Amino acid sequence: MAADSRFHAGAGPLPLARLAEAAGLPVPEGTGARLFTGVATLQAAGDGDIAFLDARRWLPALRESRAGAVVIGPDNAGAVPPGVIALVSPNPVLAFARMASLLHPRQASTGRRHPTAVVGEGAVIGEGCELGPYAVVEAGAVLGPRCLVGPHAHIGPNCVFGADCRILSHVTVTHCIAGDRVTLNPGSRIGSEGFGFSTSLQGEHVTVPQLGRVILEDGVEVGANACIDRGSGNDTVIGAGTRLDNLVMLGHNVRTGRGCVIVAQAGISGSSTLGDYVVMAAQAGMTGHLHIGSKARIGAQAGVIADVPPGMDVLGSPAIPVREALRSFTAMRKLGQSKAVNRAAEEKTSN
Amino acid sequence: MAADSRFHAGAGPLPLARLAEAAGLPVPEGTGARLFTGVATLQAAGDGDIAFLDARRWLPALRESRAGAVVIGPDNAGAVPPGVIALVSPNPVLAFARMASLLHPRQASTGRRHPTAVVGEGAVIGEGCELGPYAVVEAGAVLGPRCLVGPHAHIGPNCVFGADCRILSHVTVTHCIAGDRVTLNPGSRIGSEGFGFSTSLQGEHVTVPQLGRVILEDGVEVGANACIDRGSGNDTVIGAGTRLDNLVMLGHNVRTGRGCVIVAQAGISGSSTLGDYVVMAAQAGMTGHLHIGSKARIGAQAGVIADVPPGMDVLGSPAIPVREALRSFTAMRKLGQSKAVNRAAEEKTSN
Amino acid sequence: MAADSRFHAGAGPLPLARLAEAAGLPVPEGTGARLFTGVATLQAAGDGDIAFLDARRWLPALRESRAGAVVIGPDNAGAVPPGVIALVSPNPVLAFARMASLLHPRQASTGRRHPTAVVGEGAVIGEGCELGPYAVVEAGAVLGPRCLVGPHAHIGPNCVFGADCRILSHVTVTHCIAGDRVTLNPGSRIGSEGFGFSTSLQGEHVTVPQLGRVILEDGVEVGANACIDRGSGNDTVIGAGTRLDNLVMLGHNVRTGRGCVIVAQAGISGSSTLGDYVVMAAQAGMTGHLHIGSKARIGAQAGVIADVPPGMDVLGSPAIPVREALRSFTAMRKLGQSKAVNRAAEEKTSN
Repeated sequence: MAADSRFHAGAGPLPLARLAEAAGLPVPEGTGARLFTGVATLQAAGDGDIAFLDARRWLPALRESRAGAVVIGPDNAGAVPPGVIALVSPNPVLAFARMASLLHPRQASTGRRHPTAVVGEGAVIGEGCELGPYAVVEAGAVLGPRCLVGPHAHIGPNCVFGADCRILSHVTVTHCIAGDRVTLNPGSRIGSEGFGFSTSLQGEHVTVPQLGRVILEDGVEVGANACIDRGSGNDTVIGAGTRLDNLVMLGHNVRTGRGCVIVAQAGISGSSTLGDYVVMAAQAGMTGHLHIGSKARIGAQAGVIADVPPGMDVLGSPAIPVREALRSFTAMRKLGQSKAVNRAAEEKTSN
Repeated sequence: MAADSRFHAGAGPLPLARLAEAAGLPVPEGTGARLFTGVATLQAAGDGDIAFLDARRWLPALRESRAGAVVIGPDNAGAVPPGVIALVSPNPVLAFARMASLLHPRQASTGRRHPTAVVGEGAVIGEGCELGPYAVVEAGAVLGPRCLVGPHAHIGPNCVFGADCRILSHVTVTHCIAGDRVTLNPGSRIGSEGFGFSTSLQGEHVTVPQLGRVILEDGVEVGANACIDRGSGNDTVIGAGTRLDNLVMLGHNVRTGRGCVIVAQAGISGSSTLGDYVVMAAQAGMTGHLHIGSKARIGAQAGVIADVPPGMDVLGSPAIPVREALRSFTAMRKLGQSKAVNRAAEEKTSN
Repeated sequence: MAADSRFHAGAGPLPLARLAEAAGLPVPEGTGARLFTGVATLQAAGDGDIAFLDARRWLPALRESRAGAVVIGPDNAGAVPPGVIALVSPNPVLAFARMASLLHPRQASTGRRHPTAVVGEGAVIGEGCELGPYAVVEAGAVLGPRCLVGPHAHIGPNCVFGADCRILSHVTVTHCIAGDRVTLNPGSRIGSEGFGFSTSLQGEHVTVPQLGRVILEDGVEVGANACIDRGSGNDTVIGAGTRLDNLVMLGHNVRTGRGCVIVAQAGISGSSTLGDYVVMAAQAGMTGHLHIGSKARIGAQAGVIADVPPGMDVLGSPAIPVREALRSFTAMRKLGQSKAVNRAAEEKTSN
């Protein structure tokens, strides 16, 4: 399906040469001037659209495709039908992403300030910033150039954002210093008070003042309704380029390295740290004060209760190395299927 | 307890005949004109209230009840004490729900537009719509008749809603086409950017433009702080009458059939599809690109990693057929209790 | 690190005597008049700061510390270097929390009402309340003295709050009666419609009107983006001093006792009840209509499907007593490691 123009305005038409350059791809001779307006699936693309193929199961669709151009890996390039321009890339999805981003750029600041936006005393709004209806930027906050602040977004006192940040609708952000190109999706909560208290003998929970901040490095993206608590004394720090999906929860003092990926509904308890490029799949959890090495991967719904070395994949709750976990699941399932083993276990238990 | 009238205004008194008709129930002769004002539990109901009994354990409460009428299954109808009107139904809760909905209708549009509501250029607000304080309806959006838009709700450009929709406070909705009678509870996020990116060799995550929409069919209801991402190219589609509970997460391109039920904190990864009437219990999860057959049921905290045939019940993480899962849990627990088995496992492991 | 004064204004300097009195601690002779301005870690503290030591691993840091005073347990008090004031407490974190709270009080009402705040007819705003920009307090609501209502917070019709409550930005609260000193963190949703419906033979889900309320007793704190549904007929009740972390979900009619602690992303299904001081760790879940005894503890990611007696610790999904669960995890892991057991299970299964 081509993109619905009501929701996804196009920046095209653009010549293929410019699109391919953005993706670092050569273009076949004589095709650089061809104009393209959009991207689409192999099935839906017309001759003004670019499509891509990233798996052999789409080869039949490729044969029927009316796309103007197809981004494709070298192995499959021979299958591109005549009349369709083949753009050969070792990583077709990446190349497609770069071209599609030119044709359909992400929502960016329009530079307009809605008259209902409230800007507190001493706040500095950078050149070209957009402030949506009912946006609130409190006293002393600083926004770099071209930031987009969506409707009802709330930026607390003295928060700092770099250039080209996108703080979308209904976001709350307090106690935060952010770099450039940070995106906060709708309803995310940055800088809330961490869950820190001490309990008296009488059972009263007494809050330990949470006196840290949240540091969001360049290019961090935070999903809708996700939460990042501010540090308790030290800071909570999200490393450059890290992406959090919707409904993720990071406790106080968590630190991630560069380029980590935390998928939906996962959670990290207070003071745990992640190296670079750690991947944490959906609904996984982690207790506090752990260290996860760079490029480790944590499976969906895993429950991590111990440090994970760099590059290790873990799974299960409690989490163990993924191969062990898979064998263990198999053994457990077989046990459940086996009457003999069930009976034996029963007998031994009753001894 | 009878409903607190500060929070739950009543539409009564209404005659029993009209209430029973809504539920498709006959009324005992001579009782149709009796007036009722509310609903209550068996214990709290007075003679202007309707109560219901759906389980035998409430029979003692029935004997003492001062309710004016009781909705009850045929098996227990004989236990209704004299002076209490028995309304016999094969599904007492359903019949009660229909009667209670007449006496205590859900919050609906008052038709008033608060002067602070912002309506963008070219937006069409249907007859009888309510716009709450600080509601924002952006340019080109279309609301059918009698929609209720709560305080601070944000409806993005060109979104379309049918008749009688309820978009409650602090909702964000963008890139969305919705049918009639859709309810979005407070803080839900519809149409946010999906979690789609490709990673370069240098470790940069490059966003793949998310160019689809969210389609909400008639009668869909979405819980508080739940998230539905828009499609990446195709659409995310929620089938008619489907209900999502609070804090549910649906990734890009997810499609559900009619009447599905997704309970709190459950999540579905991108591009998975559900047939009709699938039930997914609380905190369950599902990897992407799966198909779940109609009327399948997924247990609480289950982790589904493979297709599920129609009508099958699964449980566990990874999820397996429920009977196997229960046997497997039992076997595993016995293993843990059995010193002999533990010892044997140890010996064999050390070989 | 000392607190960043842009985000954490100090109330100091304050004399040690007053700080120690708040914590119920004696001060060494001649030190009561010493002035303190902040708190910090052992490493970062200067002579105007108070630090604490709660574990022996920090003893090396203590030896190098330039803190003005250190709160410390009696066992380690001898290790405080000369020149640093030792404040001896049986619970150093608790004592530290009380002193830190004086030096860095939590955000409280400034007493200012922003001109954009909307107050409905008949609403009563107590003396000294702060209403932030675009706050909406609907008709008939009652706020006790010194409440803080953050930007964009929405308080529904006829809700009642006691004294010194903090309803932070983007909160939605409806159908709610709250005591004193209640804190609702950003984006929390209190009083939404519970997930109650009955399904007709034709597959239509018919809402059962949710006619209860939410009762928040004194001192309750609710985390960011957490959800508490109102009761279906009875009330949802959160006991005094109970703390919910971010993204927690409580269904309709849930009741907790005093001082319970529900950690991030945990969820409780409808009509379950908790005694006093129950602890539910992160991502744990519970089916409906259960009772959890006082001081029971539920482990992270546990799935509770049966009542838990007072004081019992449970773990696993399904949850079992923690010792059994740990043995069971060990046995299961060993099974996965053991080729012999795998082979045996296979053979027995194939019989």
